[in-house]
Amino acid sequence: MSSPAATTTGLDPAVQNDNLIRRVHGQEHGNTSREEVNGSAESDNDTRRKVKKVIRSKYRHVEAVHSQSRPSCLSHDTTESPSFLGFRNLMVIVLVVGNLRLIIENIQKYGVLICIGCHDFRKSDINLGLLLYFLIPCHLFIAYIIEYYAAVKARDERDAIAASKQDSKDGTSSPTEEQHRKFQSTWKLVRMLHAINVTTALAFNSWVVYYYIHHPLIGTLTEIHAIIVWLKTASYAFTNRDLRHAYLHPARGELDALPELYAQCPYPQNITMGNLCYFWWAPTLVYQPVYPRTDKIRWGFVAKRCGEVVCLSVFIWFTSAQYATPVLRNSLDKIASLDIPSITERLLKLSTISLIIWLAGFFALFQSFLNALAEVTRFADRSFYDEWWNSESLGVYWRTWNKPVYQYFKRHVYSPMRSRGWSNGTASVAVFFLSAVLHELLVGVPTHNLIGVAFLGMFLQLPLIQMTKPLEKKKSSNGKLLGNIIFWVSFTIFGQPFAALMYFYAWQAKYGSVSKMASAQQLIQQGQGTCPPLV
Amino acid sequence: MSSPAATTTGLDPAVQNDNLIRRVHGQEHGNTSREEVNGSAESDNDTRRKVKKVIRSKYRHVEAVHSQSRPSCLSHDTTESPSFLGFRNLMVIVLVVGNLRLIIENIQKYGVLICIGCHDFRKSDINLGLLLYFLIPCHLFIAYIIEYYAAVKARDERDAIAASKQDSKDGTSSPTEEQHRKFQSTWKLVRMLHAINVTTALAFNSWVVYYYIHHPLIGTLTEIHAIIVWLKTASYAFTNRDLRHAYLHPARGELDALPELYAQCPYPQNITMGNLCYFWWAPTLVYQPVYPRTDKIRWGFVAKRCGEVVCLSVFIWFTSAQYATPVLRNSLDKIASLDIPSITERLLKLSTISLIIWLAGFFALFQSFLNALAEVTRFADRSFYDEWWNSESLGVYWRTWNKPVYQYFKRHVYSPMRSRGWSNGTASVAVFFLSAVLHELLVGVPTHNLIGVAFLGMFLQLPLIQMTKPLEKKKSSNGKLLGNIIFWVSFTIFGQPFAALMYFYAWQAKYGSVSKMASAQQLIQQGQGTCPPLV
Repeated sequence: MSSPAATTTGLDPAVQNDNLIRRVHGQEHGNTSREEVNGSAESDNDTRRKVKKVIRSKYRHVEAVHSQSRPSCLSHDTTESPSFLGFRNLMVIVLVVGNLRLIIENIQKYGVLICIGCHDFRKSDINLGLLLYFLIPCHLFIAYIIEYYAAVKARDERDAIAASKQDSKDGTSSPTEEQHRKFQSTWKLVRMLHAINVTTALAFNSWVVYYYIHHPLIGTLTEIHAIIVWLKTASYAFTNRDLRHAYLHPARGELDALPELYAQCPYPQNITMGNLCYFWWAPTLVYQPVYPRTDKIRWGFVAKRCGEVVCLSVFIWFTSAQYATPVLRNSLDKIASLDIPSITERLLKLSTISLIIWLAGFFALFQSFLNALAEVTRFADRSFYDEWWNSESLGVYWRTWNKPVYQYFKRHVYSPMRSRGWSNGTASVAVFFLSAVLHELLVGVPTHNLIGVAFLGMFLQLPLIQMTKPLEKKKSSNGKLLGNIIFWVSFTIFGQPFAALMYFYAWQAKYGSVSKMASAQQLIQQGQGTCPPLV
Repeated sequence: MSSPAATTTGLDPAVQNDNLIRRVHGQEHGNTSREEVNGSAESDNDTRRKVKKVIRSKYRHVEAVHSQSRPSCLSHDTTESPSFLGFRNLMVIVLVVGNLRLIIENIQKYGVLICIGCHDFRKSDINLGLLLYFLIPCHLFIAYIIEYYAAVKARDERDAIAASKQDSKDGTSSPTEEQHRKFQSTWKLVRMLHAINVTTALAFNSWVVYYYIHHPLIGTLTEIHAIIVWLKTASYAFTNRDLRHAYLHPARGELDALPELYAQCPYPQNITMGNLCYFWWAPTLVYQPVYPRTDKIRWGFVAKRCGEVVCLSVFIWFTSAQYATPVLRNSLDKIASLDIPSITERLLKLSTISLIIWLAGFFALFQSFLNALAEVTRFADRSFYDEWWNSESLGVYWRTWNKPVYQYFKRHVYSPMRSRGWSNGTASVAVFFLSAVLHELLVGVPTHNLIGVAFLGMFLQLPLIQMTKPLEKKKSSNGKLLGNIIFWVSFTIFGQPFAALMYFYAWQAKYGSVSKMASAQQLIQQGQGTCPPLV
C-alpha cells in the first residue's frame, strides 16, 4: 500500500518505514538530533501510527495481559458453558487403561488358562447331543403332517358347505348336523395332536438334557434348539388354525381381514414341505405363509457375518476362560462364608467381564448370525433388535433387545389374551411368567440346577418395568438418563453377574471342580439366552 | 360418528357395531344363517371396514409381523446411523463400578491408612518454613526500594532534559555529556541490584529447602512460594524499566504506545507501596500498573470457593494416602528388579489415582483458590485457564491449562526475544528450558533428589508439541480426537505417574521408609506444580 506520507515525501513506504525504525532504535541509545524531533514531531497520523507500531514491538514487557474482565470458563458467571468432549475421550482412555492393567495382573496371577483339552466333552454327551440335534426338528414335521391332514379335512368341509348351499333351495349354507359334528371333532383332534406334539418337543428334550447330558455347553445348545423348535411349532399350529378358520368362512370377508401379504399364498396352498422348511430355517419364530424376501444372496455379506461370528465366539470363549473363571472360582468360598463385602467386590469385578461377554454375544447372535442366516434365506425383515442400549426404561429394553422373541410373545400370547378381554396387566404377567419359565429351563436344565434364580430374575422385571415406566414418558433428558442408568445397572451390573455366580456356585456345590472352566464360560454365556419382551 | 350404513339402515352405529360383533362371534361357532350372510355380504364399504376391524381383532395369530424389508440398525445397510448415547452412560457406570471395586479391594487389603500422627513434621521444618514464609516476600519490597530510587533518578533526568531543552538555543533536547553518563550508570546500577535481588530470591530459598527442610510437603510449599515471588519480582523490574524508558522519551509518542489502561496511573505514580502490595496479592504473575477491577466483593462467592479448596485438599490428602501410597510402595521392589511388566502394571494403576488427584488439584488451585483470591482482590480478569481438556495438541494444552505462567513466559521471555530478532524455535526452546529448570527445582529440591526427570519431562514436551502441531490444523474431528488422545495418554497416563514413581523411588533409596506417606502424597501433588506454556 502507498501511504499519504509516502506520496507527499515522494519516498517508497518501505524505505520510510526503515527510517522510522532507525529513528526509533536511535532513540534507544538516548542520542537525539533535530531532524528526528521534527521528523517524529510532525503530526502526520500515518507516520505516527507506524511509529506506535514499531515502538509497541519494542515495549514487550509493558503489554497489558489483563486488559478486560473475563470469568473462568468453569464458573457459573460464564455465559456459554464449555464443551467437555475431552473428558469423554479421557473416560474411554481410563477404561482401556484400567482393563489393560487388569489383563496384565490376570496374566501375572494365573498365566494362560486357555486349554482345549480341559473340557471333558464326554462321548455320551456328544452322541446324545447329535442325536437330539436331528430329533428335535422332527416335531416340526409332525406338526406339518397334522396340518396336512387338517387342510384335507378343511377342503372337504368347504366342499360340503358349497354343496349344501346349492342343493338346499332356501340357500342356507350350513352342512347337515352329522357333517358338522364330524368336522368339529376333527378340529378337536387336530388341536389335541398339536398339544401333545408341542409339549413333548419341550418336555422330552429337557428331561434328556437334565438327566443325561452332563456338559453344560452341549446341554445349553440342545436346550436352546428345543425351545426354538417348540416356539416355532406352536406358532405354526396357531397361525394355520386361524388361516383355516378364515378359509372356512370366505363369505364374511374374513379373507380380506388377512394381511395383504398372504394373498400370494392363500390357506391350503401354504401347507407344503417347502413352505415349512423355509420357516424352519428362517430367522424368525413367527410363522407366516409369506415373508418379505430379498432378490438375491450377497455371499460377500454372508462371509463377513460368519467371520464375525467365529471371531466373537473365540473372543467369548477366551475371555470367559481367562477372566471370568478365576473370578467365579475365587468367589466360591466368599459365598460359602456369606462375606458380603467380598461378594460385592467379586460381583463388581465379574460385572465388567460379563458385560463385555454379553455385548460380544449379543452382537454375534443378533447382528452377525441372524443377518447371515437372513441373507442366506433371503429374509428381508432384518430388524432383530432396535436401539435397546438407549432404552430409558426396562420396558423399552425388553421390547427392543430381542425382537424375534418379543414379537412371538406379542403375537401368540399378549394380543390373543387382550382380544379375549384380558387386562393389559394380566397379559403382561402371563408373558413374563412364560418367559421366566423358559429362562429357568434354559439356564437350570443344562446346569442341572433348577434353583429358580433365572425364573425370579425374569419375573422380577415386572415390578422394575412398572417402576421405570414413568421415565419413558419424561421429556427431560435427565429423566431418560436416569432410566437408562437404572436399566444398565439393574441388568448388566447386578442382574447378570449375580445369576451367573449363583448357578456357578450351585454347579460347584453339586459336582465339585468338574470342568469348572466350561461351566463358568457357560454360565456367563447364559446372558445371551433368549430373553422375553413386552409390557 | 354417524356412518352411511347407520343412516341408511336407520340404526344407531353403536348398535350396528354390536350386531357386527355378535355376527362375527356367531361365526366362531361355525353356525351361520341367511340374514347374517346378507348382512355381511352387503357391499357397504363402511360396514365392511368395521367387519374387517372386528375380525382382525379376532385373528391375532395371523398378524403379519414381518411385513416390510428392514435392515438391522447396526449393519451398514441402514440409512441413518443409530445413536450411542446409552453406551456413553454405560462407560460412566463401568468406570464408577470398576473404581468402587478397587476401593473395596483396597480397604480389604490395607484397612484405613489415613493417619494424622504419621506425618513427621519436624519442629525445625515448621520453624524454617514459617520463617521463609515471611522472608520470601521481602524480595518484592527490596525490588520496590530499588524502583523507588530509580523513579527519583528518572524524575531528575527528565527535569535535566527539560532544562537543557529551554536554555539551549538550538533547542536540542539532549542533556550534557556528563549528566548523560551519570544517568546511564544509574540504570546500570538499578539493573544490577535487581539482578542480585531476584537471583537470591530463588537461589537462597532453594538452598535452604534442599539442605534444611526435610518434609517434602513443607518444602514444596516454600519452593512454590519462592518461585512465585521470584517471577513477580522479575516482572515488576522488567515492566517498570520499560515504563521508565517510555517516560523519559515523551516527545516521540512512546507514551501513546503504552496500553490505554495504564493512562489512569502513569509511570512514576505507580511506584507506591499500595500498588506493589496489590500486585503482591493479585492472582497474576505479570505486573501491570493498572488491572481491570470488579466493583465489589461477593463474600458468598468467596466462601463457596474456599469451601471447595478445603474439601478438595482433604480429598487429595485422603486419596493419596489411602490409594496412591500403597501403589507406590508396592512398586519399589519391582523398580529395583526392573520387572518391566509389573512396573507397567503399577504405572497403569497409579495413573488413574494420580489423574483423579491431578484433576482435583487443578480445580482446587485454578478454579477455586484463584477465583477466591481474585474476588477478594477485586481482580476482574479471571481467565486463569481455558478449555485445556479439549486440546487437540500438546501445544494447545500448554498454552491453555495454566495461563498465569503462560502469559508470564510469553510477555517476559518469548515476545522480547522475538522482538529482538530471535526465531520462534529458539524462543520456544528458551521458554521450555527455563520452565524445565523450574520444574526440576519444584520437584527435585523438596524431595532432595535433583535427578532431572521433571526437567526432561518438561523439556521433552517440545518434540511432542512439534509432533502434534499438524493435528491442530486438522479440520477433521478425527485429527482433533487423535491429538486429544495423544495429549491425555502422554501427559496423564504416562508422564505424571512415571515422574511420581521415579521421585518416590529416589526418595526411598535415599531415606528408606521415613514418612513414606507424606512423600507419596507429596509426589502425586507435584502434578499440580506450575507448569510452563507456549510454543
